[in-house]
Amino acid sequence: MKGKFIVFEGIDGCGKTTQINEIFNWLPTSNLISNNSSIIKTREPGGSLIGAKLRELILSNNKDNVPTNLTELLLYAADRTEHVTKIISPALNKGDWVLSDRFSGSTLAYQGYGRNLDKEIIKKLEIIACQGQKPDITFFLDISIEESIARRKNQIPDRIESEGVNFLRKVNIGFKKIAKENNWIVISASNNKENITTTIKNTLIEKFG
Amino acid sequence: MKGKFIVFEGIDGCGKTTQINEIFNWLPTSNLISNNSSIIKTREPGGSLIGAKLRELILSNNKDNVPTNLTELLLYAADRTEHVTKIISPALNKGDWVLSDRFSGSTLAYQGYGRNLDKEIIKKLEIIACQGQKPDITFFLDISIEESIARRKNQIPDRIESEGVNFLRKVNIGFKKIAKENNWIVISASNNKENITTTIKNTLIEKFG
Repeated sequence: MKGKFIVFEGIDGCGKTTQINEIFNWLPTSNLISNNSSIIKTREPGGSLIGAKLRELILSNNKDNVPTNLTELLLYAADRTEHVTKIISPALNKGDWVLSDRFSGSTLAYQGYGRNLDKEIIKKLEIIACQGQKPDITFFLDISIEESIARRKNQIPDRIESEGVNFLRKVNIGFKKIAKENNWIVISASNNKENITTTIKNTLIEKFG
Repeated sequence: MKGKFIVFEGIDGCGKTTQINEIFNWLPTSNLISNNSSIIKTREPGGSLIGAKLRELILSNNKDNVPTNLTELLLYAADRTEHVTKIISPALNKGDWVLSDRFSGSTLAYQGYGRNLDKEIIKKLEIIACQGQKPDITFFLDISIEESIARRKNQIPDRIESEGVNFLRKVNIGFKKIAKENNWIVISASNNKENITTTIKNTLIEKFG
């Protein structure tokens, strides 16, 4: 039986990593997953070996190394196809569950809405890169940009995180539209952590139990 | 006045580098190019700063780091769009001449004919990556695979060069088809070097003089 592909989306600081860790620890104790199945925690960019090198390149703050917007988009597509082919699809085919911090939705939000790249080009590349692989469910942790910035104030930002408030605002508006269009599970990230985790668990039980 | 974009294609060992150097040295002494124009010698993959990092990744012999064929294709597309946007188009717009060791034709030959990737996907990616930039002329240095292998026998091959005879044969058949379909200037690379250089010079004079 095929595993489940569960994606977490949202702007930085929305709590994706925390929630993925909670669900990763909870899943083996739930009745959702068989004893023979593993749970894979992964992320984009950087979920594969080549992806890790692409992640360095994409997020580098080196000013000599800033890719054009279109190069950035193609690097994300390369990262995604490597991730799908080597990590996600083999795991799902074995019956493992995959929890991914970001997937195609992030590309449409950041490169489409944030960078204003042609959404038709993004969709074409998504079809090429994903090879039909789609999440079984996507959780969107919805946070205001003010809270995102406040939560990250002691972190050194990467190149994308340094893009500023206007960029982040466009990305977040994009995420809300994409969430609506694709029936993502939208959870307000202003709730306390435990409540968010409970909502995610209950949603997974309802859908896959 | 816009510069000229001159591309050299062919399998490894066909003499592209030698001929590009000859033409690079000769062009300033020809009457083809104005005194204010520069000549840019470049290559794919690796003609830009980010491209140089992608070149390492694409051609690496590290067995842990072998990209899928589709990832490889997308990395070439990322390299190309960065190259076009940062190096080729700005140079041409200033009136400079660009001599490039490989361009889109190599992707169609190696990834399309060599790897048997879907040529429709390759064409879609080419449109995205090239943004309308096309060579003014392409020289195809036509060499047999036996001679290609013989000429490279003392070199350490990169990952693509290590693909073996069958792969190289498919690539070379592809190059011949592409050359015909796109009216490339085909020059037998079995001629001696000086004759090849003379043919290239005369072709450039005839076309751009």
